[in-house]
Amino acid sequence: MKIRNITGGFTSAKGFKAASCQAGIKYQNRLDMALLFTEVPCAAAGTFTSNKVKAAPVLWDMDIVKSGKPVRAVVVNTGIANAGTGEEGLRLCRETAAFTADTLGIPADAVLVGSTGVIGPNVPLERITAGVAAMAGTLSDSAEAGTSASRAIMTTDTVNKESAVAFELPAASGEGAVTVRLGGMSKGSGMIHPNMCTMLGYLSTDCAIAPPLLQKALSAVVKDTFNMITVDGDTSTNDTLILLSSGLAGNRLIDEEDENYELFCAALFTVCHDLARRMASDGEGATHLIETHVFHADTKENARVLARSVVGSSLVKAMIYGKDANCGRVLCALGYAGPDFDPAKLVITMSGKSGDVCFYKDGCVQRFDEEKALRILSEHDVRFDCDMNMGEAEAAAWGCDLTYDYVKINGDYRT
Amino acid sequence: MKIRNITGGFTSAKGFKAASCQAGIKYQNRLDMALLFTEVPCAAAGTFTSNKVKAAPVLWDMDIVKSGKPVRAVVVNTGIANAGTGEEGLRLCRETAAFTADTLGIPADAVLVGSTGVIGPNVPLERITAGVAAMAGTLSDSAEAGTSASRAIMTTDTVNKESAVAFELPAASGEGAVTVRLGGMSKGSGMIHPNMCTMLGYLSTDCAIAPPLLQKALSAVVKDTFNMITVDGDTSTNDTLILLSSGLAGNRLIDEEDENYELFCAALFTVCHDLARRMASDGEGATHLIETHVFHADTKENARVLARSVVGSSLVKAMIYGKDANCGRVLCALGYAGPDFDPAKLVITMSGKSGDVCFYKDGCVQRFDEEKALRILSEHDVRFDCDMNMGEAEAAAWGCDLTYDYVKINGDYRT
Repeated sequence: MKIRNITGGFTSAKGFKAASCQAGIKYQNRLDMALLFTEVPCAAAGTFTSNKVKAAPVLWDMDIVKSGKPVRAVVVNTGIANAGTGEEGLRLCRETAAFTADTLGIPADAVLVGSTGVIGPNVPLERITAGVAAMAGTLSDSAEAGTSASRAIMTTDTVNKESAVAFELPAASGEGAVTVRLGGMSKGSGMIHPNMCTMLGYLSTDCAIAPPLLQKALSAVVKDTFNMITVDGDTSTNDTLILLSSGLAGNRLIDEEDENYELFCAALFTVCHDLARRMASDGEGATHLIETHVFHADTKENARVLARSVVGSSLVKAMIYGKDANCGRVLCALGYAGPDFDPAKLVITMSGKSGDVCFYKDGCVQRFDEEKALRILSEHDVRFDCDMNMGEAEAAAWGCDLTYDYVKINGDYRT
Repeated sequence: MKIRNITGGFTSAKGFKAASCQAGIKYQNRLDMALLFTEVPCAAAGTFTSNKVKAAPVLWDMDIVKSGKPVRAVVVNTGIANAGTGEEGLRLCRETAAFTADTLGIPADAVLVGSTGVIGPNVPLERITAGVAAMAGTLSDSAEAGTSASRAIMTTDTVNKESAVAFELPAASGEGAVTVRLGGMSKGSGMIHPNMCTMLGYLSTDCAIAPPLLQKALSAVVKDTFNMITVDGDTSTNDTLILLSSGLAGNRLIDEEDENYELFCAALFTVCHDLARRMASDGEGATHLIETHVFHADTKENARVLARSVVGSSLVKAMIYGKDANCGRVLCALGYAGPDFDPAKLVITMSGKSGDVCFYKDGCVQRFDEEKALRILSEHDVRFDCDMNMGEAEAAAWGCDLTYDYVKINGDYRT
């Protein structure tokens, strides 16, 4: 196996430190701030929300990432999103970055800022700066520090999400191979919908790779991972995914799209896929992960649209929660997705660890073993395979069921 | 007032009869079939689901409406949708039409068929024909017969939906005016999303109007009424809206787009708007109607897209249920809708009968009176006005809140 899963997250790769603290931004007595720090200036790639209303930290980060300037630190808070806050919101980003820069002895435009939480209120600057001051003294490259940071960025998440891999690349010395690491963390449980990541995610690698290829790899991998999950169809104002590269692994610089670049992309896919799947599984109120694979579609984009339509359907989501094999709803969700197809060629199968049932083919909903279907629907992970029998494109999407708890969580989020 | 609301529904206009019965298609001891009959051959206009998977009755009706042949009857059943049923489903439509034609002494291709309910099973033909035979003898043009039919087409609807208007048009005789009536009924509570009506609806009028203008009027009005409601974002396989015209009112034929055509369109809008709003208000599990008006958008289509995005947002829907004035979610839903706009120019106001609060302007979420907001959110109808300050286009959309009961209803729909 070329790419190996390893324990850890943001601090797995060489050159990355993390710290976290209870800053009391909105919640009391829980971690609500993280500080990420890089030992050397890092190339940064990023993808951001497509929402026309972008939170202040998103605007701040986009400027820095697009400028190509090296990044040294990221300050993240939960509780308040710093969105819908106009000029004052941007000023708070600027002040946060300036204070962090002073504290750590780095340039202010090397500091990224991330926020998640309620839209509207301003972040309390004095608590943010007090948090940064406290965290600066506890930065560590330990696995525990990374895990703590992944906990500190949670909002309605019920579990923290970290993932990391290791793989080998040719050494810069020209002799043999060196081990390269790539890992990170993400958060996101509600206001999650595939249209540019819809989440906060911070990834790091010690792989030496040219900055344009770093961005290219991230943009490509996001399309088939974070952009293929949905919890509720709501694309956040704050979605941010950052990938930092320290280049400290000692590998020969990847500066063209060769086999080493492909291996790097595969490693990035592994980590993003893992984090994305966990986010869908931990959707607000979720009791099931719903995975949909579309095969033999005419185009890749149509395959993606079809797969997302199934995992995004309120009726499919409610039926999975109710363990009701009302398979016509999957058929219906494919039908209204948009792409044209021939219902007579379509084959739909539902599967779990306990087996599978084919419930649609030859243009007709099939009779199936209801007990077998109930066994599958009683598992946590339920999968739909949709064979369009049209072409060679395929895609997968991940979502979760719609439950009383989703309604409960979002009926009184502010209180 | 040129257009007057009158009591009644499908049987209000001259020449239309209705009947209903308990056919035991799926449910027992409740009305589940309706038969609509016209005393003279009627011009028919129709709009149908955009779902690529179309139920057999949709394919059957589309053929007849597109052919321009006159319509004499409609047979509707609830409980089973006759969707995902392939060739067998079409055969059942053919048999139903043939039996109804024989019974009523009309051509088989003058019989429309409508079904709503579970996707997958075949409709039991013998119960359908027994129902038609029973209803044929009880056809009546009374208001009660129309109301009964509107009850018979309900599925998870909690109230029946009828609406009718009367207005005056120049008489065919050339002297004075005659009264013209237009009315109808619709059903739809779940699997409701604006992409070609998403419902069953049957409208009738005694207005004499050229068939191409009848279709043109229906297609235009649907865009701003039935296509602007959403319950759950799921576009059904069965959506059908039919408008029949008997021409018996005695008005001078409307055969050009003059002021009389405009008046007809306004009357049609009144009835469709009324039915559509009631459908949103009666969405599965709903406890609130959510109405969104977008003003000063750059284009009509963008205004529609923005308005629908707000009423379709799971997070907005859940916050209304929870009476939580988390106004950033409305801002967020406008932002991810797609159309470009300047967040700094946007003004958002929430209102009800008890007053209004402005909660977003000048690029910032505003402080507002929480008690006043709670009073508004305690009303059944909650309205958002979104002023884009860009152009002259406007649109309105209607939806409902997301509740425990929606999840409950759709968690075990088949059982």
